[in-house]
Amino acid sequence: MRARDLVADYPVVTLDTPVLEAARLMAEQDLPGIIVRGDDQLTILPGTETLRLAVPRYIMDDPALSRVVDEGHADRFLGSLGNRTVREALPQERRELPVTDPDATVVELAALMARTRSPLVAIVEQGRLLGAVTLQALLDRMLET
Amino acid sequence: MRARDLVADYPVVTLDTPVLEAARLMAEQDLPGIIVRGDDQLTILPGTETLRLAVPRYIMDDPALSRVVDEGHADRFLGSLGNRTVREALPQERRELPVTDPDATVVELAALMARTRSPLVAIVEQGRLLGAVTLQALLDRMLET
Repeated sequence: MRARDLVADYPVVTLDTPVLEAARLMAEQDLPGIIVRGDDQLTILPGTETLRLAVPRYIMDDPALSRVVDEGHADRFLGSLGNRTVREALPQERRELPVTDPDATVVELAALMARTRSPLVAIVEQGRLLGAVTLQALLDRMLET
Repeated sequence: MRARDLVADYPVVTLDTPVLEAARLMAEQDLPGIIVRGDDQLTILPGTETLRLAVPRYIMDDPALSRVVDEGHADRFLGSLGNRTVREALPQERRELPVTDPDATVVELAALMARTRSPLVAIVEQGRLLGAVTLQALLDRMLET
């Protein structure tokens, strides 16, 4: 079994998509992350990163500080995302991207997910995006659930 | 809104649960990870870590090497999990755990998910596990999808 047997259509956003729209897409379709079409390569915005922009720096450093923040404000904290874009939400550090080609084996997909900690691998063939393989799809096929 | 308003029942395994059983639970219930009751604390086994034990070290280091592995073997790679346990599958490095108490605000939950890269936060009150808040539940409530 290869990635081409497991790949499925997957939503794609651009660097200029509002991060709130990306978050909405993930919430509605129950996605663990989203594929981002960059200027010259694909990347992945992990679900856990979508809300990061809405969290003030001092709370990111010490979450317990949010206890002292006015609770009404906390409930509206997504408002602070405004029109900020996926470009701003993407992790800054250079990292290995969970992107491979349709010939990847299931072991290779599992290794890529474990190493990049991404439950989502984009499958690209000669520069063309075919879709993604999710951890869920991989587990379902391997365990035949 | 606080963690106590978002927390929901969540499956828990022990350190001695076979990792294959944990993987099956995640696949069947579409979970991003699972809560593990440890000897003296709770921890989280991220979904992306479940398959790591089944991946030979040389492929983990260089996934492309899996291309040269016999494909039939690759398809049966989960078999190599045998009776290996959740204890063996847990990440070795010490890391901040995505665990907090029911008074955590939504901003605090978001910060914890972003910092630990976990789409799952366990909620504990005075040593008792109440359940978990998932990124999905948090997004759903914040975006009212």
